[in-house]
This record gives sequence, C-alpha cells and structure tokens, in this order.
Amino acid sequence: MRCKAEGGCPHVATSMIQTLEWTDRGVRFIDQTKLPTEETYVNCTTYQEVADVIRNMVVRGAPAIGVSAAMGIALGVKNSKAESVGQLKTEFDEICDVISKTRPTAVNLFWAIRRMQQKFESLRVRTVAQIKQALVEEAQRIHAEDIAINQEMGRNGAALMPASGGVLTHCNAGALATAGYGTALGVIRAAVEQGKKIHVYADETRPFLQGSRLTAWELVKDGIPTTVISDNMSGAMMRQGKIGAVIVGADRIAANGDVANKIGTYTVAVLAKEHNIPFYVAAPISTVDLETPDGSKIPIEQRNPAEVTHFAGKAVTPVGVQIENPAFDVTPAKLVTAIVTERGIARAPYEESLATLVRGVEQFVNP
Amino acid sequence: MRCKAEGGCPHVATSMIQTLEWTDRGVRFIDQTKLPTEETYVNCTTYQEVADVIRNMVVRGAPAIGVSAAMGIALGVKNSKAESVGQLKTEFDEICDVISKTRPTAVNLFWAIRRMQQKFESLRVRTVAQIKQALVEEAQRIHAEDIAINQEMGRNGAALMPASGGVLTHCNAGALATAGYGTALGVIRAAVEQGKKIHVYADETRPFLQGSRLTAWELVKDGIPTTVISDNMSGAMMRQGKIGAVIVGADRIAANGDVANKIGTYTVAVLAKEHNIPFYVAAPISTVDLETPDGSKIPIEQRNPAEVTHFAGKAVTPVGVQIENPAFDVTPAKLVTAIVTERGIARAPYEESLATLVRGVEQFVNP
Repeated sequence: MRCKAEGGCPHVATSMIQTLEWTDRGVRFIDQTKLPTEETYVNCTTYQEVADVIRNMVVRGAPAIGVSAAMGIALGVKNSKAESVGQLKTEFDEICDVISKTRPTAVNLFWAIRRMQQKFESLRVRTVAQIKQALVEEAQRIHAEDIAINQEMGRNGAALMPASGGVLTHCNAGALATAGYGTALGVIRAAVEQGKKIHVYADETRPFLQGSRLTAWELVKDGIPTTVISDNMSGAMMRQGKIGAVIVGADRIAANGDVANKIGTYTVAVLAKEHNIPFYVAAPISTVDLETPDGSKIPIEQRNPAEVTHFAGKAVTPVGVQIENPAFDVTPAKLVTAIVTERGIARAPYEESLATLVRGVEQFVNP
Repeated sequence: MRCKAEGGCPHVATSMIQTLEWTDRGVRFIDQTKLPTEETYVNCTTYQEVADVIRNMVVRGAPAIGVSAAMGIALGVKNSKAESVGQLKTEFDEICDVISKTRPTAVNLFWAIRRMQQKFESLRVRTVAQIKQALVEEAQRIHAEDIAINQEMGRNGAALMPASGGVLTHCNAGALATAGYGTALGVIRAAVEQGKKIHVYADETRPFLQGSRLTAWELVKDGIPTTVISDNMSGAMMRQGKIGAVIVGADRIAANGDVANKIGTYTVAVLAKEHNIPFYVAAPISTVDLETPDGSKIPIEQRNPAEVTHFAGKAVTPVGVQIENPAFDVTPAKLVTAIVTERGIARAPYEESLATLVRGVEQFVNP
C-alpha cells in the first residue's frame, strides 16, 4: 500500500485495490462476494445491472455504495436514447428511483443521488450531450473525492490510534468499502504509515463475513499484521488485554451521534465500554444525516434469511427454525468516544460537533 | 419431547435424541458434526475410537464428554485380553490416560475418569470378569444418572425462566450436550412443560455452529419456537427488548463461581449486564471444580485454526492471516445471576453456595 519512493511521496498506492472504476465499457466492480478466494470483476453496462450489484452486495460499504450509485446514474444517463432534455430528465428520475430502492440504511446512497440531482438541475439549460458528459464527470469526481476524503480522514484519525498493540475492527470499512484507502482501515493505514505498530483484530462478521473475507484480504495485501476472530471472541480478546482501541465505519450517523453500522457493532461498543477501551467511528461527512434526529429513526435493512441458514450452499440450520437477519444495528452516541471525519474529529455533545462539521467549519479537536 | 400420555406421565421422552448409547456392539454416538442435515451414527468398537470421537467433536458438551469418557473406559476394559487384575489395571491406567488427553477444559471428563478409577479401586479383590462387568455397569449408571440429573436441574431452574418471551442461549447445552434432556435446554424444556411460553433465541455459535446446527435442531424437534441469530446479533436483540433471560451451560465452574463455557459466553454475559437481564448457568455438580480456585486457572483449549479459516471445505480467509480459536472463555462470577444444579440453585457468594452444594447439602434458595 505504501509507496516505495523516498521522502514522503504523496502517492498512497490505492491502485492496488480498485473497488470500482468507470471505464469506456461500463462500470467495473471487484466482486466482493467472491473474495478472498477469487479476485474477479463484474462489468455493468446498464444502470439496472449497477442496481443489482449494489443489492446483491457485489459492492458494499456505505461510501462505495454512494460512489456506485453516482456511477450507476451516470451510466444510465449515458445510455439514454432521449432526444430532449425533458425526456432525459424523465429517464433520469426513473434511474434515480431504481437506484434509491437498492438498500435502505447507508445514507451515502441518498447523498450521492441528491448530488447527481443537484448537478442535473444546475445544467438544465444545456444540451442532452452536455448533460450526459457533465453527469459522467460528476460521478468520476465523486469517486476521486472519496479517495481524497479517506486519506484526509486517515490523517485526522491516526493520532487516536495507539502507538502499538491491538486494534479491533468489525466488518469491512476499508478500501473495498470505499473508492479506495478506507475509513476505519484508512485511519489504521495512516497510523501504520506514521510508524505505529498496530496489530489488527478483525471480527469475521457473520453472516456475510466481510471481516474474514475482505478486511483480512486487504490488510494481508498491505502487510499489516491481522488476526481474524469469530465475532464472539472479541469480548475474550478485550478481557485478555489484547485490544487497545476499536475503530469501525458507519452506514449512517444521526444528528445526535447515534451510529448505524454493520450488525454486531453495538455489541463491540458495549464490550469496549466494559473494558474502558476507546470506541471510534470513522466516516465521511456524507454519512452524517442531520435530517435523522437519532438512531431510532434509521431504517434497518433485514436481509435474506438464507445468509444465516446456508453457507456456500450448505444448510447449517434445520428446517422449521426462524431467523433474524438485520444487516445493521444502532450504537448509541454515549458509547462513541469520537467520530473521525475528513473535516475533523467530533466528540460529544455530537448535536453540536457534527452540525458544525457538516456546515463545513473544520473542528480541530485535540485527539 | 413431551410424552403424549394424559395426567402428567413421568416419561420425559428423551429417547427421541440418543446422544450416545452403550450397545452390545460398542458405543454408538449421533454424529454431531453432520447435524442438522444428516442424522447419522458412529459406532465405536475401541476406546481409541471413543477418544477420537471426543477429540473431533462428534460428541461434545461437558456432561456428554463425561459420559463418553466413562463409556470409552468401560469399552477399553471390556475389550482387554488381560488375564490378571494387575495386568488389567495397567491397561486401565493407559486407557484413562489416553481418554484424559482428548480435551482439556470440560472438568466432567476428569470427573468421570476419577469415578471410574474409584470404582476400579473398590473392586480390586475381584476377578477380571467381575471388574469388567462392574465398570461397564458403572458407565451405564453414569449415563442414566446424567439424564436424571438434567431433569432435576430442569425442575430447579424452571422457576427462574420468564412466564413468556425470549430466552437467549449460546452454544448447545441441550440433550446433545448430555446423555439427554440437557442442562440449559433442560431448564427451558422444564419451563415449557410447566406451560411457560418461551421463545428461544439461539446464537449460532461460531465457529462450530452448535447453536444453529444443534440447539435449533433439538428445539425444532420439540416444537419449541426458536430463532437462530448470528452471535453478533444478541446485543441488538437485547436492546430491542426481545430477551428476558439468558441461560447457558458450563464446561467448568471454579470454586469462586467463575464459569468457563463456549467462546462468546462472556460477551453475552456483559451484554446481559448492560441490559439488566438475568444471566443463568445450568450445570451438574460434576462441572463444579472446587480444586480450581478461579477462572484464571482453567485451561482453555485452542482448537484448529481451520475451524475459522474454512467452512465446508471452502476458504473464508486469505492466506497469510493469523487466527485465534479459543474454544472457551471465562465469565467472571460477578456477571452470573445464579447457577442451577441438580442439588439446588447457587447464588453469590459462590465460594459458599457452591461448596455447600458440592458437599451434598441441598440448598433451597428461592429463585
């Protein structure tokens, strides 16, 4: 991951993992359902295919979902046969509607759609060709910005990481969950780049195994020492003194600082509190949703029970049993030590600190 | 599970699940690695095969491991070609040694070996044939006693269960973990038999999936409503108010009330405390180890990393990642609301209450 050049080369070699990419032939995604055993790519040539790819978790992670949504919209618009701006707008609205219904929790999806809508509105007086070009460029800009945002977040958060020792993360908030570099794993990468000796403990993160399949894959590629544990081992690892900090991503952060993130995050936060271990969240400002007052208002997606009942096609539960499969849970703000964003670090009271950051004023809070 | 006869038939139809059984052709085990998709049986004709069956978790669960150890010893003795009592004793010691090295944490294994040793000692003046017969009978007695103990434990613990609502359990402390009926699931069964409307939430229990594969299979057979969740969902279920009590089994209980049980139990106990939910442990007196002063002295088995890295032969982690796979963790006594045994219910201070129960004095503590 780190550039080999001397003297602090500004390249962070995120090119090693291309989560998704705009190409002349469509939008190309690394297939996250096949990792870590197969590194294969899916090329989408229609916006409906991009919607499927988001829905089926070929791509996942709130920031990556946002970038995917923008690229899906750009692809749909580019493919349009519309001959008038009015006709293009009708198709654009339909495309946005389809993309908006793929997954409910990650607010970055809706943020990206809104940003593409705003771009379209700002361009209404132009030609169909000009609008197409502008929307494709906007999607690519969102992609590039996301990488830069993650790097900034990494710089902001690195000081929070311990100089050495274990850092626990849950799910995958890495390069694969973003356009590159990662949110929580971006902070860890930045800390390692600063010379901190971090050993990552990655919860495997049932049922989709983002931790064992994706986080471990990314970190092994980067040479960052990583231990995979079952989700139910994090308490024991903390009690044994192996964990000095926890850092996770987020799918939506409410105005009061409540954090929706991958199911199991709440359990980790309760365990961190019990062991007096700091619990950090790293997320771009686009994940903060000031229109959602608190976590109880965040829609939580229920996914297919088959994710729990079957594994690689093999049944692991008997017929007749019931299943719960919420994809996310909500960690109340009181359990969150700090929220790392590209604009600075927010601490309680989050109503104030988050609102200040969203309004664009950098908050320099000493870590 | 419940006998269909009118008027409170004393049969608890544990015959529906035969975890293990002494037969003329050897010791027969239901293969717990194959459930719930295949109900197959393994027949062991040598004590070494019984040792393998314990080691490979074809049979698991502290009480079932104890009964298996006794039967393995009886089988080895029965098969002996020894012509003198002295020769038989040498072989017996070798058999006990092999069996004792199968798994380190469940103290019931060592309890059963000691009981068979005591039986042998008490019989020294008899013939080889008489000793063989007595040891086979002793193993069968341990088997029968275990079922009776579980039923008594169920009666003692049922009053602790809520009249209705969700009860969370972790791993499998059921009929499959014992000679029949179960410890934690025995308490749930007894409560249901008393008319309580319990809905069981079963943690799937990675990496071996005893919850989804075994607990769910048992309870569905019995018609007890059961929802399987990933281990990382228990916190969210508690926060949503779905869990009224937690009950688990134990592999070893130290003199001070610290409880070694399946990895993840500690996490559940911390979550229960955070939500003011009672956390109960159900275990026979043979699981209480007064010679171990506290949990820090309990040996914790590390199992094969492949349990975490692979699933049904498929890799779920990248090459180069490290793995932790402790089979058990220790829940400190302060998180344990009560310990249900066949002799009564122990509450803090456990040093006193457990010692009293072990000495054989029934403790009638109001639930």
